[in-house]
Amino acid sequence: MDEPKCHFCQKLQTLDGLPAPEVVWCFPHSVAFLGTWQYYQGYCVLVARQHATELSRLEASLRREFLDEMCLLARAIEAAYKPHKLNYELLGNQVPHLHWHLFPRYADDPDRLKPVWLVLDRCEQDTALRTRLETGRQDRATTAVVLRHHLTILGAPTA
Amino acid sequence: MDEPKCHFCQKLQTLDGLPAPEVVWCFPHSVAFLGTWQYYQGYCVLVARQHATELSRLEASLRREFLDEMCLLARAIEAAYKPHKLNYELLGNQVPHLHWHLFPRYADDPDRLKPVWLVLDRCEQDTALRTRLETGRQDRATTAVVLRHHLTILGAPTA
Repeated sequence: MDEPKCHFCQKLQTLDGLPAPEVVWCFPHSVAFLGTWQYYQGYCVLVARQHATELSRLEASLRREFLDEMCLLARAIEAAYKPHKLNYELLGNQVPHLHWHLFPRYADDPDRLKPVWLVLDRCEQDTALRTRLETGRQDRATTAVVLRHHLTILGAPTA
Repeated sequence: MDEPKCHFCQKLQTLDGLPAPEVVWCFPHSVAFLGTWQYYQGYCVLVARQHATELSRLEASLRREFLDEMCLLARAIEAAYKPHKLNYELLGNQVPHLHWHLFPRYADDPDRLKPVWLVLDRCEQDTALRTRLETGRQDRATTAVVLRHHLTILGAPTA
């Protein structure tokens, strides 16, 4: 199933070597990573264990379980941080291995009416902005612990 | 269930008054509209029939059926237009009523590695760009017919 040159396939094979805050939860069919942009406090990236470029390539029952895992992670983010809105995005334009971006949006974000990518794109030229958007209200280790706590309460399955 | 001031609730109540190409398919739990930006040939917006601001507000079995409908629409777009990649986005930052954007991406798009929103944001100041991105390889009526043909082949349920 693995693609040797795929960034996410490589990451999934080296989970044990990652710092503890980075891996939020190991579901049966996906792994939730804490995302870079913690200005969106609780932002996670949910990576499918199976290498597939499109949802339609997954067998139907596996696809449904993968989407159930996405919904559980979303509920944990909502329970933990009570966002104003949650944005779900499966793109894969740069890394075509199924992964969901779950971006919680907050009412005090001046750009809350727009997709996150408009401001994230500006980070490439603006180091101060990048640092601001990488920094959450909580440190990464605490965020991972809080999300795991809520996933445990929700009875999220593990691999 | 309806919210009188919600743009999508209002639209769902006036489906009969819309031009034929606009409504691609009436699923049991959602309605697929042909999207504005047909540079992304086959782009659709799938609107939940029930007014809910977040996926987590839907009862679990209804949520799964809504996501199955999203996957059927995605497969029809893929079968019809063979995109390089398909982007799924549920945002709701401006209209908080569940709706999926399904953006097919093509290999000849110079911005194919980026989210669509970066170029779409520039349309607000650039009328020529807006016209280009609204215009598909096929006219809207043909696109709707082609998508319906593939949804029929896939056995998509209707309301």
